[in-house]
Amino acid sequence: MGYERNAIARMHGYVPGKQPASATTIKLNTNENPYPPSAAVMQALHSVQAEVLRRYPEPMAEAFRAQAARVHGLRPEEIVAVNGGDELLRMAVTTFVEPGAPIGVLEPSYSLYPVLAEIHGSPVVRVDARDDFSPPDDFAARINAAGVSLALLVNPHAPAGKLLGAREIATIAKQLRCVLLVDEAYVDFVEPALCHDLLPLLREHDNVLFLRTLSKGYSLAGLRFGYGIGCESLIAPLLGKTRDSYNVDVVAQRLATAALVDRASAQLTWQRVRDERSRVRSALQGLGCKVPESHSNFLLAEVAGKRLTAEATHRELEARGVLVRYFAMPRLDQSLRITIGTPEQNDRLLALLRELWT
Amino acid sequence: MGYERNAIARMHGYVPGKQPASATTIKLNTNENPYPPSAAVMQALHSVQAEVLRRYPEPMAEAFRAQAARVHGLRPEEIVAVNGGDELLRMAVTTFVEPGAPIGVLEPSYSLYPVLAEIHGSPVVRVDARDDFSPPDDFAARINAAGVSLALLVNPHAPAGKLLGAREIATIAKQLRCVLLVDEAYVDFVEPALCHDLLPLLREHDNVLFLRTLSKGYSLAGLRFGYGIGCESLIAPLLGKTRDSYNVDVVAQRLATAALVDRASAQLTWQRVRDERSRVRSALQGLGCKVPESHSNFLLAEVAGKRLTAEATHRELEARGVLVRYFAMPRLDQSLRITIGTPEQNDRLLALLRELWT
Repeated sequence: MGYERNAIARMHGYVPGKQPASATTIKLNTNENPYPPSAAVMQALHSVQAEVLRRYPEPMAEAFRAQAARVHGLRPEEIVAVNGGDELLRMAVTTFVEPGAPIGVLEPSYSLYPVLAEIHGSPVVRVDARDDFSPPDDFAARINAAGVSLALLVNPHAPAGKLLGAREIATIAKQLRCVLLVDEAYVDFVEPALCHDLLPLLREHDNVLFLRTLSKGYSLAGLRFGYGIGCESLIAPLLGKTRDSYNVDVVAQRLATAALVDRASAQLTWQRVRDERSRVRSALQGLGCKVPESHSNFLLAEVAGKRLTAEATHRELEARGVLVRYFAMPRLDQSLRITIGTPEQNDRLLALLRELWT
Repeated sequence: MGYERNAIARMHGYVPGKQPASATTIKLNTNENPYPPSAAVMQALHSVQAEVLRRYPEPMAEAFRAQAARVHGLRPEEIVAVNGGDELLRMAVTTFVEPGAPIGVLEPSYSLYPVLAEIHGSPVVRVDARDDFSPPDDFAARINAAGVSLALLVNPHAPAGKLLGAREIATIAKQLRCVLLVDEAYVDFVEPALCHDLLPLLREHDNVLFLRTLSKGYSLAGLRFGYGIGCESLIAPLLGKTRDSYNVDVVAQRLATAALVDRASAQLTWQRVRDERSRVRSALQGLGCKVPESHSNFLLAEVAGKRLTAEATHRELEARGVLVRYFAMPRLDQSLRITIGTPEQNDRLLALLRELWT
C-alpha cells in the first residue's frame, strides 16, 4: 500500500502507441505526419543560442501567441500555448471540473479522456456515438442531465475521421450548460473544399474551447506543442492561473512560431496526405473493408470475413515491420486504425494486407 | 461569472519573476546560472534531425533516466523526468493529495507551493520557520496533527539559502506520516566540503521524494527540465499514471541527457558561483546588511537602517537596469533576494547599492 490516492492506486495509466526500436519499422500507428517539418523550423532550431537556454523562457509564449493570432484572425488573449495538446486536456479538467464532478465524452473517442477523468476523481458520462461516429441528437441533453462540467468532442472524430460542421457544433454548444472542448488535433487534414472553420463560433459561444496541436499537421510530434483557442473569459484562467508558470520551453516556442510563420510548407504535406488517404481508402475498400470517410490523417478499416481477425492482422503486420493501431474495445475491436504514410509506406501496407488476407 | 471552478475564480495566479525586454538588463532576480550551458548541450541541440521532431518522443525519457541513474548510483525506476521542477510539484499534489486534503509547507518558502494547493482545492498548513529559516522541532508533529498528505520543504531553503543535513531530513521523514517532497532545486551549489548527499535516504524512507532541476545548476532554465527521485513505489504512480503521456519533448530529453553526461562542465560553474557568493556576502555585510549563510546561488540580504527600504532599493535598482527579487511578505519585506551573477554583474550591483545607500 503506497502513498498515492486511492483513485490513483486503482487506475490504469494511459498506454501510448508503440515507439519502435528499429528505424526501418513503418509507423502507421500514432498518426504522425509522414513528411518532415518545414526547413524554417530546422533553421530556427539550429539558430538557438546558449544564452537563450540559460534564461527562463517567456512565461506566456507571447511571440507564439501573437503569430497564432495572426494566422487565425484572433487576439492573443484568445490563445494559450501548451506542452502538447494533452496538456490542454488536463488543464481544462483542472480548471473547469470540480473534483468528483462528471466529465462527458462521446464513445468511442480518444482513450486518454477517461484516464484524465480518473486522475481527477471524476466519473465519466459516456454517450454512445451513432453508427457513423457522430453524436446522437440528444448528446447535449444527456450531458446536461448528468450535471457534467466539461464535455469533450474530438472533431474530426478519432479513431474514425468523421467531421461535424459548424452548424452541428454550434447546436451542441448552445444546448450545453458546460464547457465544450472541441479537440481539433486532426483539423488540418479536413478537405479544403468544405471551407471548414469552427473558430468563428467563439464569438457566439463563450463555452467552446478549441484544441490545436502542431504534432500532426506540422510534423512536430517530438516537440510537444499545442494551443487552446476560446473567448477571452475561457482562456484567462488557463493562461493566468492553472497553467504551470513556464509550461512551454524556449526551443519549443521558437520552433512552433517558425512552423506557423511557414504554414505554407505544412499545407503542402496536408494535401499529399489527403491524396494518399483517398487512394488508400479505395484500396482498402477494394480489399473488402468497410472504411468510413475520414477527414483526418488516418482511416478506420473494419476487418470482416477475412482469414485473419483485426487483432491477428495487427499482430502479423507488426511481425512484418508495419505498425498500425488496434483497440481492444467495443465497436473498435473488429477494426484497425491506419495512419496515412508516404506512398511507399502505404503500398507496403496494402501489399502485406493482400498477402495476409488472401 | 465564468465556467472555471469557484476556487480558480477566487485565486490569484503565481507571478513569475520579471523577464526583461532589454538585453543589457542585469538579471539577478530569478536565480539563473550566470554561465552558459555546456558546449556538449549546444552540440546536442544542433545535431537534432527533422526526423526526430516528426515522431513522438520516447514517452518515458528512457535515455535520460538511464543517465541520471548512472550519475546518482540509482536505478531508472527511481527516477521520473519532468517538464521543469514545477511539473513535479504539481504531479506530487495530484498524485498524493486527495482534493481538499491539506498540504504542509514551511513558511516562508517557495511561493508557488500555496498556489498549487489552491488550484487543488487544498488548505495550506503553514509552519513558521525559525529565525534561521530551518523548520522548528515540532514541524513533523504539527504536519501530522493537521492530517497533511504532502509536505514540501525546499533545501537549501529558498529564499534564504539555509541547508538542512541528512540527519535533520531523516528525522522529519521518519516522523511524518505523509510524503515529504524535498525540493533540491539549488542543491548543486552546496559547499562540496560538506559532502552533502540526501539521496541515500530513499533506501530508508519510502516517503521521501526529491526534486532536481537542470534550470539552475546546468544553466538550462529555458529548456524546462527536471526530475524526481524516490523509491520505486513512490515514483511508479508518477511515471505510469499521473504524468502527461509525453511530458518531456525530444529536444529537451536529448539536451538534458547531454548536460548530465558533461556534468563536469556544470560543476565548474558551481564553484565559480560559490566563490562569488562568498565575496558578495562579505561585501553586503560590509554595507551593513544581515546576510545568512547561503548554500544556494542567491543571498537574502536584510536591508535595515538604510536611506532606502528594501522595496525602494529594489525599485531604484530596476530603474538602473539591475533586477533583484523583492517579496512583499511577512519576514521577507525588509530583504532582497539577490541571485549570484558574474563578477562584473555583482560588482555593478554592489556599486549601485553603495551609491543608493550612502
